[in-house]
Amino acid sequence: MKPFIHEDYLLVTETARRLYHEYAEQMPVIDYHCHLSPKEISEDRRWDNMTQLWLGGDHYKWRQMRANGVAERYCTGDAPDYDKFLKYAETMDYLLRSPLFDWTQLELARYFGIYDRFCSKSAPAIWEKCNAQLAQPGFSARQLMERSNVRVVCTTDDPVDSLEYHRNIAASGFGVKVLPTWRSDMAAKVWEPHSWNRWVNRLSEAAGMEIDYWEDFLEALEIRRRHFKEHGCLLSDYGVTEIVAEPYSGEELCRIFEKIRSMKSLDPVEIRKFQTAWLYEGLAADAEAGWTAQIHFGCMRNNNIRMYREVGADSGFDSIGEYHAAVALNRLFSWLDSEGRLPKCILYAINPNQWEMLGSLIGNFQHGPVPSHLQFGAAWWFNDHRDGMIRHLEVLSQTGVLGRFIGMLTDSRSFVSYARHEYFRRILCGKLGEEMERGIIPSDIEWVGGLVRDICYNNAERYLFGTLH
Amino acid sequence: MKPFIHEDYLLVTETARRLYHEYAEQMPVIDYHCHLSPKEISEDRRWDNMTQLWLGGDHYKWRQMRANGVAERYCTGDAPDYDKFLKYAETMDYLLRSPLFDWTQLELARYFGIYDRFCSKSAPAIWEKCNAQLAQPGFSARQLMERSNVRVVCTTDDPVDSLEYHRNIAASGFGVKVLPTWRSDMAAKVWEPHSWNRWVNRLSEAAGMEIDYWEDFLEALEIRRRHFKEHGCLLSDYGVTEIVAEPYSGEELCRIFEKIRSMKSLDPVEIRKFQTAWLYEGLAADAEAGWTAQIHFGCMRNNNIRMYREVGADSGFDSIGEYHAAVALNRLFSWLDSEGRLPKCILYAINPNQWEMLGSLIGNFQHGPVPSHLQFGAAWWFNDHRDGMIRHLEVLSQTGVLGRFIGMLTDSRSFVSYARHEYFRRILCGKLGEEMERGIIPSDIEWVGGLVRDICYNNAERYLFGTLH
Amino acid sequence: MKPFIHEDYLLVTETARRLYHEYAEQMPVIDYHCHLSPKEISEDRRWDNMTQLWLGGDHYKWRQMRANGVAERYCTGDAPDYDKFLKYAETMDYLLRSPLFDWTQLELARYFGIYDRFCSKSAPAIWEKCNAQLAQPGFSARQLMERSNVRVVCTTDDPVDSLEYHRNIAASGFGVKVLPTWRSDMAAKVWEPHSWNRWVNRLSEAAGMEIDYWEDFLEALEIRRRHFKEHGCLLSDYGVTEIVAEPYSGEELCRIFEKIRSMKSLDPVEIRKFQTAWLYEGLAADAEAGWTAQIHFGCMRNNNIRMYREVGADSGFDSIGEYHAAVALNRLFSWLDSEGRLPKCILYAINPNQWEMLGSLIGNFQHGPVPSHLQFGAAWWFNDHRDGMIRHLEVLSQTGVLGRFIGMLTDSRSFVSYARHEYFRRILCGKLGEEMERGIIPSDIEWVGGLVRDICYNNAERYLFGTLH
Repeated sequence: MKPFIHEDYLLVTETARRLYHEYAEQMPVIDYHCHLSPKEISEDRRWDNMTQLWLGGDHYKWRQMRANGVAERYCTGDAPDYDKFLKYAETMDYLLRSPLFDWTQLELARYFGIYDRFCSKSAPAIWEKCNAQLAQPGFSARQLMERSNVRVVCTTDDPVDSLEYHRNIAASGFGVKVLPTWRSDMAAKVWEPHSWNRWVNRLSEAAGMEIDYWEDFLEALEIRRRHFKEHGCLLSDYGVTEIVAEPYSGEELCRIFEKIRSMKSLDPVEIRKFQTAWLYEGLAADAEAGWTAQIHFGCMRNNNIRMYREVGADSGFDSIGEYHAAVALNRLFSWLDSEGRLPKCILYAINPNQWEMLGSLIGNFQHGPVPSHLQFGAAWWFNDHRDGMIRHLEVLSQTGVLGRFIGMLTDSRSFVSYARHEYFRRILCGKLGEEMERGIIPSDIEWVGGLVRDICYNNAERYLFGTLH
Repeated sequence: MKPFIHEDYLLVTETARRLYHEYAEQMPVIDYHCHLSPKEISEDRRWDNMTQLWLGGDHYKWRQMRANGVAERYCTGDAPDYDKFLKYAETMDYLLRSPLFDWTQLELARYFGIYDRFCSKSAPAIWEKCNAQLAQPGFSARQLMERSNVRVVCTTDDPVDSLEYHRNIAASGFGVKVLPTWRSDMAAKVWEPHSWNRWVNRLSEAAGMEIDYWEDFLEALEIRRRHFKEHGCLLSDYGVTEIVAEPYSGEELCRIFEKIRSMKSLDPVEIRKFQTAWLYEGLAADAEAGWTAQIHFGCMRNNNIRMYREVGADSGFDSIGEYHAAVALNRLFSWLDSEGRLPKCILYAINPNQWEMLGSLIGNFQHGPVPSHLQFGAAWWFNDHRDGMIRHLEVLSQTGVLGRFIGMLTDSRSFVSYARHEYFRRILCGKLGEEMERGIIPSDIEWVGGLVRDICYNNAERYLFGTLH
Repeated sequence: MKPFIHEDYLLVTETARRLYHEYAEQMPVIDYHCHLSPKEISEDRRWDNMTQLWLGGDHYKWRQMRANGVAERYCTGDAPDYDKFLKYAETMDYLLRSPLFDWTQLELARYFGIYDRFCSKSAPAIWEKCNAQLAQPGFSARQLMERSNVRVVCTTDDPVDSLEYHRNIAASGFGVKVLPTWRSDMAAKVWEPHSWNRWVNRLSEAAGMEIDYWEDFLEALEIRRRHFKEHGCLLSDYGVTEIVAEPYSGEELCRIFEKIRSMKSLDPVEIRKFQTAWLYEGLAADAEAGWTAQIHFGCMRNNNIRMYREVGADSGFDSIGEYHAAVALNRLFSWLDSEGRLPKCILYAINPNQWEMLGSLIGNFQHGPVPSHLQFGAAWWFNDHRDGMIRHLEVLSQTGVLGRFIGMLTDSRSFVSYARHEYFRRILCGKLGEEMERGIIPSDIEWVGGLVRDICYNNAERYLFGTLH
């Protein structure tokens, strides 16, 4: 039986193979959105075994294990590492067609040279082989990144973070740029006055100033922005369940701020006004700084109350929401654009039934000189699979300029998930190659190949670093 | 010209053919959701002609006839059977690519050995040939079921039903298990106090107790549940236009119940509270009983007032709704899960633009020991066609565990619609076989073939009957 | 390198080629919905250069140019024509997979005999070659229409329009029928009392009567309808952002009308009632006249305030909305159907995530004798591309009667966009041909080919002109 992962995996046509091997394969990686731990990079972490590497914090895997009937102690619980590994392998026995299946096989092949199908039968031998390799050179956090041809990673960081690890990494002479990303979501969680005030107190401390009024708040954030900028920050990120664009006046904002700062609960309209202001002011500040904003919208989080109490956030209990966004996004962007304060921005919608809306909406606010200064962001989270990537490319082609797309990202906490960039590139080349052979697009391999290279690396580099050629 | 239906219909690749013929074809059928008449099974009904068999109660066909310009008297009206048959044949002249076209051809081939294209030209001869066969052995209700390799069918039944036909069938020694399904929708139609009270009176009689209070109501339903259980019931079913999860207190419920029981109209919030309670208590009771719940949501019914008055419900005037369900479903399931009262449950969404939402939402509440105890239900009603089945498999693969899927059902009133199981199996094998040949999934035919068998039969058997291997 | 556009463009299988060349290619065109200028047809306009022809009013192209970073002066601004042309060519360098790319190449091939890839390198030579041809015979408005094998075009016209150009064209003996379409959207813009009253004053003048009351308003519209009918009008068209079906009484309507006629602002409920009445009465009048109504719904217009002020409407700042329509459409159509006032109607949804809903909803109101008297309209605007057309055919096949589809339209302001009919036909034949070879539909080329001809031309002719065979 032919191994599943091989030289021409997902490349069915001759043209696809040429596109991938001659144009895409050798391009370096800019992973402009991920959740890697700067601490682990700074300390150049190593792993004792595959459960630590694979199952430590990966709620994608936990979800599918639960869906296969695996008890919680093998997911987030205290079962022995080897038992957890076996439970994951058992789950793979049923995970036909899942993106997890593909990534797992790709990671085994690329980092461990293992081409067997990972299943309950092969698991014991694979456990041994992989763990032995993990103890060898080449498997530290930094070495995995270098082996993956990564040039830049952008982590996801709280404005109150000292960024000490980023500083250490930069000082260490590590060949991969590790840059912070400004993620200020805590500033907008105004439905919980207590935790919000705790966070504002930390912000006050980090910025070295009292925060009593809305103006103080903005100023403190600006101080922290400067700190992020000094550490090479290029991007911001906003995680928003429902996009709101509730008109507000400056006076209202001041009153709302003082109300919650004195620990009083806001009513729903006040919450919406505050969140609108947070997003509006954040995006305007991004424009001012020349940063690229990211907006991730539509996800419902922590939907299982029982499990939220037991194991907390980011444990695999989030899902796709159904929040209309067209009216609010158009309004918000129109406000910003009218005042010349609309930043470069990447928009990610979790619900794929909003992609055509989003792709078309972006077109309302495009203008020079940056090509596609608004980007329809890559297939996010629950869409991060072959079908989702292809649908994303399809909708982007219909509504935007495919040749200006800044390409894939991992969105991951794992040091071996760079395989996802390879996965994306093979899918991109597979699709374009097949379409060239069918005459759907021109069979001009130099032209198409050049655009493939742009999508894999050049566009992200030009777009994010502003080195517009 | 090659006949349309043949040995390898829909099986374009060699691997698809092997998957189907070596793994799928011979598996028996568990039709766990249908609308067959227990009376007709009990009486072992026969049909005089094809119009009776095909067009008697099939609103799928009536809709397409109307869309082809056919007058109502040939659909639900009093036109002669032969004329109706011809009008259906004329409609087939234009039904290119319709699932109705495929099913019609498949039913002609499998039950009557007829491979001609059914059209206005071939109709008279086909009428003669089929009617002659209908008079022969092999064409009674039970014989058609036996010829279709059916092991179990689950009908759809009102809690007030005596289940006498189920009892008769079981007593008759018929080889196919015919089990009732608990469908209590009448209990929730509280926007019509008169018809609702009439139904509650029937419930009162069936349960042999007075129903004055909410507690009585629950008790009477519980008595009927025991009756259903004694007749082998394994499943419940809830048909819900819009999923609601309106918080309510026990006191409120009592007051609301007494209000409507005394024939007063409820206000919209009261209706929502009642419906939430009905669904919550029903699901909790299902969990208690070890039953599998089904929730069919999002359909708008009886949209054509004129035709509703003329020909009543279930006549082809229903369509896909646009009701958000994510917030309410997450809330309802979180309540149930928190109290350990969430049953095994199959969720069917009529609007395919909610499938990614639904597939991901299910993952919030999966846990052992039953694998995929929440199921993303098969492509329902308006989605029950090649494209819909493929999209369903795709979304299920992305968000869940395909290898644990309990497979297809007919949802039908017809004794020849088991051809739909064959249709599904060919589509499943066609897709997987093609993907194996393209290297999208491993070319391990034993593994994939085993999962195909599970999806066709084994999973449903284990999941519904609890014979977890 | 094989030229991109060739004899068998998009026709990958032998059967597809036969379907296209033997059945589709030679069929004439009925372009039953477009935005051509009757004045330009009447005056038989010519163009000095390609920028005038291509970029004069085409906001599709402007949008993609902006998304490629091109400054506004090259889109709607005062840059020299040649510079604009070059900027469009530069955009094409990145427009891989865009429908604009395909149309541009197809228009160059069909009207100018140019098969090179249009890009920044080839642009100067193509500019010269095309402009030289534009000065030759065969490139006037009428000649382009005749070369495109067009039989009928239906323009889009305001009820207050004198239709003098239509009269002139008819009198000139031009071989292509140019018919007006009744588009009364101005009558419903009641959220702006001033501009609305200005328009009603124009209506008053055109109808030759005072308009003080709701009854006057309906009568004046009826007078104009008769004027349109005298000029061959067969269709109406309603552009609606959100479909509303707000119950109203005649009295309410009268009061609302007098309120706004006296320049007072309406509240939101009054606006909804007025719009419901406008749509209801319009459709009922269409039924009375035997016209076919068109409803285009769901588009959000003029979303960029700054650009709306600078360059006005229809400049490329519209996008896909997210407005639920199922409840309102079902209600509105049920009202009309109950009173026997539902006209033939073509429904176009801008958001493709509503297509399954729409396709199924239509089925609630189909009845004879006109086959598919409700039509699920062709892939509109942002959906007007290969993937959108295929999805449209797919959903139509699932929910309706494909063989009764009245086919494609251009929706365009350009005299060379008839290439879009060719594009559609190739896609249709490509899909059906491939499915015949794969056994998904019967390989009966006479049957399928006949339906292809019907979809390309015959159905539109029978449906619109009522020549039901």
